[in-house]
Amino acid sequence: MSADKRFRGVIPPVVTPDTPDHELDVPSFERLINYMIGGGVDGLFFLGSSGEVVFSTDERRDQIVREAVRIVAGRVPVLVGIIDTETERVIEQGKRAIALGADALVATAPFYALGGPVEAEEHFRCLHEAFGDVPLFAYDIPVCVHTKLGWKMLAKLGAEGVLAGVKDSSGDDVSFRYLCQENEKLGHPLSVLTGHEIVVDGAYLSGADGSVPGLANVEPKGYVRMWKAAQEGDWTTVKAEQDRLNEISHIFDVTKGLVGYAGGVGAFKTALWLMGIFDSNTMPRPVKAMEGENVEAIKKVLEDNGLL
Amino acid sequence: MSADKRFRGVIPPVVTPDTPDHELDVPSFERLINYMIGGGVDGLFFLGSSGEVVFSTDERRDQIVREAVRIVAGRVPVLVGIIDTETERVIEQGKRAIALGADALVATAPFYALGGPVEAEEHFRCLHEAFGDVPLFAYDIPVCVHTKLGWKMLAKLGAEGVLAGVKDSSGDDVSFRYLCQENEKLGHPLSVLTGHEIVVDGAYLSGADGSVPGLANVEPKGYVRMWKAAQEGDWTTVKAEQDRLNEISHIFDVTKGLVGYAGGVGAFKTALWLMGIFDSNTMPRPVKAMEGENVEAIKKVLEDNGLL
Amino acid sequence: MSADKRFRGVIPPVVTPDTPDHELDVPSFERLINYMIGGGVDGLFFLGSSGEVVFSTDERRDQIVREAVRIVAGRVPVLVGIIDTETERVIEQGKRAIALGADALVATAPFYALGGPVEAEEHFRCLHEAFGDVPLFAYDIPVCVHTKLGWKMLAKLGAEGVLAGVKDSSGDDVSFRYLCQENEKLGHPLSVLTGHEIVVDGAYLSGADGSVPGLANVEPKGYVRMWKAAQEGDWTTVKAEQDRLNEISHIFDVTKGLVGYAGGVGAFKTALWLMGIFDSNTMPRPVKAMEGENVEAIKKVLEDNGLL
Amino acid sequence: MSADKRFRGVIPPVVTPDTPDHELDVPSFERLINYMIGGGVDGLFFLGSSGEVVFSTDERRDQIVREAVRIVAGRVPVLVGIIDTETERVIEQGKRAIALGADALVATAPFYALGGPVEAEEHFRCLHEAFGDVPLFAYDIPVCVHTKLGWKMLAKLGAEGVLAGVKDSSGDDVSFRYLCQENEKLGHPLSVLTGHEIVVDGAYLSGADGSVPGLANVEPKGYVRMWKAAQEGDWTTVKAEQDRLNEISHIFDVTKGLVGYAGGVGAFKTALWLMGIFDSNTMPRPVKAMEGENVEAIKKVLEDNGLL
Repeated sequence: MSADKRFRGVIPPVVTPDTPDHELDVPSFERLINYMIGGGVDGLFFLGSSGEVVFSTDERRDQIVREAVRIVAGRVPVLVGIIDTETERVIEQGKRAIALGADALVATAPFYALGGPVEAEEHFRCLHEAFGDVPLFAYDIPVCVHTKLGWKMLAKLGAEGVLAGVKDSSGDDVSFRYLCQENEKLGHPLSVLTGHEIVVDGAYLSGADGSVPGLANVEPKGYVRMWKAAQEGDWTTVKAEQDRLNEISHIFDVTKGLVGYAGGVGAFKTALWLMGIFDSNTMPRPVKAMEGENVEAIKKVLEDNGLL
Repeated sequence: MSADKRFRGVIPPVVTPDTPDHELDVPSFERLINYMIGGGVDGLFFLGSSGEVVFSTDERRDQIVREAVRIVAGRVPVLVGIIDTETERVIEQGKRAIALGADALVATAPFYALGGPVEAEEHFRCLHEAFGDVPLFAYDIPVCVHTKLGWKMLAKLGAEGVLAGVKDSSGDDVSFRYLCQENEKLGHPLSVLTGHEIVVDGAYLSGADGSVPGLANVEPKGYVRMWKAAQEGDWTTVKAEQDRLNEISHIFDVTKGLVGYAGGVGAFKTALWLMGIFDSNTMPRPVKAMEGENVEAIKKVLEDNGLL
Repeated sequence: MSADKRFRGVIPPVVTPDTPDHELDVPSFERLINYMIGGGVDGLFFLGSSGEVVFSTDERRDQIVREAVRIVAGRVPVLVGIIDTETERVIEQGKRAIALGADALVATAPFYALGGPVEAEEHFRCLHEAFGDVPLFAYDIPVCVHTKLGWKMLAKLGAEGVLAGVKDSSGDDVSFRYLCQENEKLGHPLSVLTGHEIVVDGAYLSGADGSVPGLANVEPKGYVRMWKAAQEGDWTTVKAEQDRLNEISHIFDVTKGLVGYAGGVGAFKTALWLMGIFDSNTMPRPVKAMEGENVEAIKKVLEDNGLL
Repeated sequence: MSADKRFRGVIPPVVTPDTPDHELDVPSFERLINYMIGGGVDGLFFLGSSGEVVFSTDERRDQIVREAVRIVAGRVPVLVGIIDTETERVIEQGKRAIALGADALVATAPFYALGGPVEAEEHFRCLHEAFGDVPLFAYDIPVCVHTKLGWKMLAKLGAEGVLAGVKDSSGDDVSFRYLCQENEKLGHPLSVLTGHEIVVDGAYLSGADGSVPGLANVEPKGYVRMWKAAQEGDWTTVKAEQDRLNEISHIFDVTKGLVGYAGGVGAFKTALWLMGIFDSNTMPRPVKAMEGENVEAIKKVLEDNGLL
């Protein structure tokens, strides 16, 4: 009952490229996946919040997973987000992902309908029952689902074998630290991953088993070096790498007039386009792609940090 | 460019009955639909928030719409909720509902991914483009989608023919009143419906074109009388009917230990079960059905108000 | 045990004028008070949220109450806001207001420190014990204090004689309606007033005993006519007056670049300045007064509605 | 323009003891202050959120500062919270604290009235102008004041000499890390302190100049050892101390039926009472003191961790 060793280290959430007419851009997708695996990442998380999961129809989701499995070709584990509103719908998403070759599934608390911790716990139990041996991660992302998963419940579900891990994007570092500590006491059943790319250093010090940093789409090697340094207890290097990565992260705050997904994932797509990895920075409907001065602002950040 | 006359008056959101093994309970569904049409309602809204839309797989949603259209058999208009996360997924939901015979579609702002008013407006434009002449209602329900639709935008989209109406479950009576007033100035293109069953009287005074009261599943006739009184300017009766209905609405607050959907829709299902319209009060996973003292508490409210 | 008849009808929250060097502008204050009493209001509420209560030192608060009592001179009841963080501080504010001649006191739930309904209820009990016979109103304003006062608790405290009334600025019309109905069942111990100037019509239909509309600083006569019409059951006039007043209320939304107090109370002050009632539109520090195009935009609204 | 060296290291927010009749319990206060100074802390912060600032009248606040200055007697710097709603009131609080001997002042963003970043920035500028050379800390505590202070603004005000430091209780570790990094780029004008006792280790790794841990009232020595280890780059010890302290912190979550201040500061007071430092665990009105099983639960945590 100790965490699955496959799900440790740097496991970026993969940004999904679109063609200008909103189809999956397979060549760009292939370049990005190879760029990150070449950079040394330990796994890849597809159909996460920044991977267009909620913008994609079921057919498109299947295409993304199918292409991902083909391109990755077993080089690293493939985690797949099965984001949907409530239990029965999530079970359907999960079964399709398993059939297409996912190594692990990542599910949020139920959302849209109002509920509480009782419903969240029952939800994960139903999912585990439906998915059997396939590792299930709880994705704690209250900014999207408006429920915070309690650390006591998560640790308990880990100890019972319902959950294999947690991807924490809650922004609650106190809860995260309690979770790591409780997980340790219970024999470390959960693989606890942080989704906060700006404070991965603190999460590693807290005892995280790895990270899911969106910014690793743009600069995977820095996150890989940070993880290795953390494994060796070289905290000076951990901090220095985080400092450097955070400078690149200003692609999030140099643009104007954009909020949410348009500014966040939009920055990733625009950077990857400027770097020649993506053929365009097209966004899924109803979001508009960045233009003009916003593109220039991101270009400057990349240049200042040696990425162009 | 004046609001479609079919979508006025009392249009309850239909609660969906489940068999104990979580299948659609068709006989109960038929009884409920006939009970409300017999009570004089002007339309029925299927797959709303209280109609298990987010708990139902696509296959189940199709079954609900198919049975609804069959049972209603043209007696009143059939509105269908096409609730899903973002534009492409909502378009798919809408196309299937149209194919199955929906008279109008009801869509929320996009949710899960973070966005703002720019994305919400573009979303409704994309939907209208995809659905053509089928009337499209904006469903303003920030408690579920965490975006409030601005009244200026809604009125503008009405005037442009993008939206046919608004179902307001925002709890913001100030915004609702501004919307009614602006809609009037623009020639009344929108059918503006309130989803707040407890203050339908105030909404009618504000100028609403009708209501979508969940409590009308339990007591449709009161809402029908209230609407007729409002049409005749008999505000004393409007208020008296609302007062009486609000007594019944205490089925929401006499239970203990339940939150959100479990307490709200759970109260409807339990009442309908006690009244013999539903064969059970089964809830969709991961929500538990009411039991024991909570059932007794609801029973007492129904008895006190002459419904048992 | 029936609500105090003095606290019914239109009781505007009085906006406080400042000289350019941030002193109380007594002549402007006198003009405003006389303008509203001349317009027929039934009471005046000083040191409310829009009356600069939280911007004023204790000395300044005392000056405001002293001048208010002097100028009003018994023509209408004087209600005084005793807004402060927690119980002991609020008691001090209340004792000073009583000594200066307040006819009733208005207190919010405790704020800043985190608490719940248990603390809120105990708070009002402590205040009542300290103030004895002086009528105490609960001021329900979660947007400022981040606690919603439950209608069951408010009605109970009314029935027990702890509270004389409620000033509801919660924006929760469902809760408001339940409160009115419960109050009625208990013999109407509370004077229930709405603070939502845009939907006073709905609140009157719900059974409100009066209103506390900020916009009555600018146009008291409309609110007075609305109250009289409501008393006579003339709901057509009630709605028509509300419609007209809401046009004036667009002084809130025609400005740009301002949020919160700067845009709301700033609009009142700018309107009163343009109308010659105030000598300036100075705002309390750290808020800036409106300038340039924002002043012009408000001027246009006033002109369009015959107030200039 | 580099941060004042006096305000580094462990600077606990001092819990304020009450006698059973709600007076300041001076002997208990003296014991607590000496306990913490004996434990090696680098400063003390009086009248913070956990120091009953918002529960205390001005007279009581003065008494607390006066006694604090007397008891501390120059052994460590005395920081004083000057928490009040808006600018003029905060200035008054600050002037009194300066007169009584405060070494530094700690002020939040304005609260109660709605405002934005423009008002917050102007507020701190007004305070600095009023207080002259006395060091001013911005206290970032959105859970109480409902405004988050932006890191760009804080760093700018540091570089301009308006702010001497920041006490961050925002729970936003991303913003905290950006603040530390920006502060460094600007020559480190601000003393940046974290208020999050559970993740002080991560804050130190982020570059914090110290911490303001409430739990240090109960166990100061652990925080002092952690700070020294951080200064020496011994991160293994830093983490181990934090792990140990977090076990003690479960005094926050072993109680039942309490929320907010009653559960948080109530746990501190109860622990200090059980440890013989306080003569009672009396809470300020309207909050009730812990009793019965809750006291037993805290006792057990203290025993399990060798504090009893």
